Amino acid sequence: MKFSIDRTKFINQTNNVQRAISSKTTIPILTGMKLDLAENGLTITGSNSDISITAFISKEDADNDLNIESTGSIVLPAKFFNEIIKKLPGDNFNLKVLDNNQTLITSGVSEFTINGLDANNYPHLPEVETENQLVFPTDLFKEVVNQTVIAVSTQESRPVLTGVNFIINSDGLTSVATDSHRLAQRKIDITSDEEYNLIIPGKSLTELVRTISDSVKEISMSISENQVLFSFDNVMFYSRLLDGRYPETDRLIPDDSNTTLTFDSSNLLSSVERASLLSHESRNNVIKLVIKAADKKATLFGNSPEVGTVEEVLDCSSLEGEDLDISFNPDYLKDALRSFGGNTEIEVSFTSALHPFTIRPVENKDNFVQLITPVRTF
Amino acid sequence: MKFSIDRTKFINQTNNVQRAISSKTTIPILTGMKLDLAENGLTITGSNSDISITAFISKEDADNDLNIESTGSIVLPAKFFNEIIKKLPGDNFNLKVLDNNQTLITSGVSEFTINGLDANNYPHLPEVETENQLVFPTDLFKEVVNQTVIAVSTQESRPVLTGVNFIINSDGLTSVATDSHRLAQRKIDITSDEEYNLIIPGKSLTELVRTISDSVKEISMSISENQVLFSFDNVMFYSRLLDGRYPETDRLIPDDSNTTLTFDSSNLLSSVERASLLSHESRNNVIKLVIKAADKKATLFGNSPEVGTVEEVLDCSSLEGEDLDISFNPDYLKDALRSFGGNTEIEVSFTSALHPFTIRPVENKDNFVQLITPVRTF
Repeated sequence: MKFSIDRTKFINQTNNVQRAISSKTTIPILTGMKLDLAENGLTITGSNSDISITAFISKEDADNDLNIESTGSIVLPAKFFNEIIKKLPGDNFNLKVLDNNQTLITSGVSEFTINGLDANNYPHLPEVETENQLVFPTDLFKEVVNQTVIAVSTQESRPVLTGVNFIINSDGLTSVATDSHRLAQRKIDITSDEEYNLIIPGKSLTELVRTISDSVKEISMSISENQVLFSFDNVMFYSRLLDGRYPETDRLIPDDSNTTLTFDSSNLLSSVERASLLSHESRNNVIKLVIKAADKKATLFGNSPEVGTVEEVLDCSSLEGEDLDISFNPDYLKDALRSFGGNTEIEVSFTSALHPFTIRPVENKDNFVQLITPVRTF
Repeated sequence: MKFSIDRTKFINQTNNVQRAISSKTTIPILTGMKLDLAENGLTITGSNSDISITAFISKEDADNDLNIESTGSIVLPAKFFNEIIKKLPGDNFNLKVLDNNQTLITSGVSEFTINGLDANNYPHLPEVETENQLVFPTDLFKEVVNQTVIAVSTQESRPVLTGVNFIINSDGLTSVATDSHRLAQRKIDITSDEEYNLIIPGKSLTELVRTISDSVKEISMSISENQVLFSFDNVMFYSRLLDGRYPETDRLIPDDSNTTLTFDSSNLLSSVERASLLSHESRNNVIKLVIKAADKKATLFGNSPEVGTVEEVLDCSSLEGEDLDISFNPDYLKDALRSFGGNTEIEVSFTSALHPFTIRPVENKDNFVQLITPVRTF
């Protein structure tokens, strides 16, 4: 195996692949990055037990300046290999595999000899049929993920709740996540020949949206028994799926309400951020909302016995229904409000002090809802 | 005490004062920020056992929008007070001390009530005579500090070595620091009526240069028995001095050399950074320089038994003297090279493989030297 390549183009792709590689893995070869050089180009692979990422650098694209002298494969220690490539002096570098997987990397005056590993010992990538692909506009896909992944559980006690449930049928795609204290659900229109119900680990989705650069227009999704493959540009992103049955969540979302307020999402977020400054210092991180319907007045209270108190009359555009005193974790509300984007008109609907309340965008009420369970303080 | 003030102007000054405040102090009142409101303006104070910083906001400067209703003093919990002020909704805020040091802060719809502390219990600032002030151009002062403070010791076993020695006499200012493995010495011209020999803690100097904003043209230095006061704009920065006698360092700096090379500082730094990628992974963090005078060739070697090896022929502009094999800690050389700034022509002079070597700027050889002790590897 021997080639030379444009250093910047190579680094762009290793930056993608690097996201799948963990230095904490218990499988030593997975701390490495695999290079496979074929006649048509170079494939770079990184993997951990949950996700695998490959990036392809084509020989055809002259910008890559890829000159192939002989094909082959090698696994190099990812951390050092990346640091070395980033610090090399030249615009290009040469890589040549010597005996015993020793690998010579040269660029300008620099000459590195790195101990590689036999690529035959690297685990095989999962096999995923790409016949029935679903195709999403990138922005919409990122929105669906970012709006739901905030609600996944970080506790491993119920593993299915650490994932986002994707339900694909004739109604389109419904994406839902809950950690049993809060829930996020987003629906979008999509046509699919097949029906699917899968649970994708939240961590995989978070890494995936970080990997998709702004220049990517579309992303394709292929689903197999226990793997999902996302492909875009020259990148393939594999994630394992979570086993098990995701709970029915539709019945958790209330249909009617007794008190409804509308806000600008950014205004309400700022108020909750201020109130949470003090609640974070108290033992139970809770803030209280008091609604006086007759006065059309909603007031937020936060306090910490040590530091002090805060109170703030909220700037709501409408307020209808019954009086209410309700307490909740401000961090859940902050996460939920951020998911609407800035300056969106939102509707917050309450049933009672002990029932979950919902936040929806006024413009798209049926397709997006954030739900938060209050805290009983009496 | 009651006033209103421009929020941004206030934050600019609390950001300075905040540098002196540690949440880890064993003296509870020092986790607070002191506000003293007099007829002419507001003084903000922060302190820990080593440094104290005050900033003054003048009533005269209309930009501060400082409206004083009644004077007084209060100590507020610094961390929360700063977070609250940063998140308030209005351009201005009002502050009023109520009974029992409770303090009401209002801005727009927000209303915070914070538990303050009695300002009478706050420690007094050190007293420093400001009659014999030394005045430095800010850029030059920052340069002196940044070029020497890199060599202070981080070990408390010899406390004087954790500081930078400032010697002021008819020759000007000599600033020197050493951790006994390396040494940095910088001299500048300055006229002073008095002679001084003081040791300023390295940490104080690091905080000081961070506090001086780019807009500051001059900085004044006043020295007392055990304190030094730096003043600039409306800020006063006090540091304690270190007790004890700083070692004589002049005799450590060799006068002659047997091998001398000149480099561009940035080029050499890049080469050392590459070589140290591997040396960092070996048990003794050492790289080797091999000089072949007849070939006019200097080669840098780094290796890690686990990862591999690197070798690089250095790009030197001149090479005179005897052959040499010398090994040293690359991190000391990296710190030293960075202190010259980018693309400076530097001279590196060696006596033998076991004697310290020096790095000096070709343009200013007599006034600035970095010295590094090699490592014996045989």
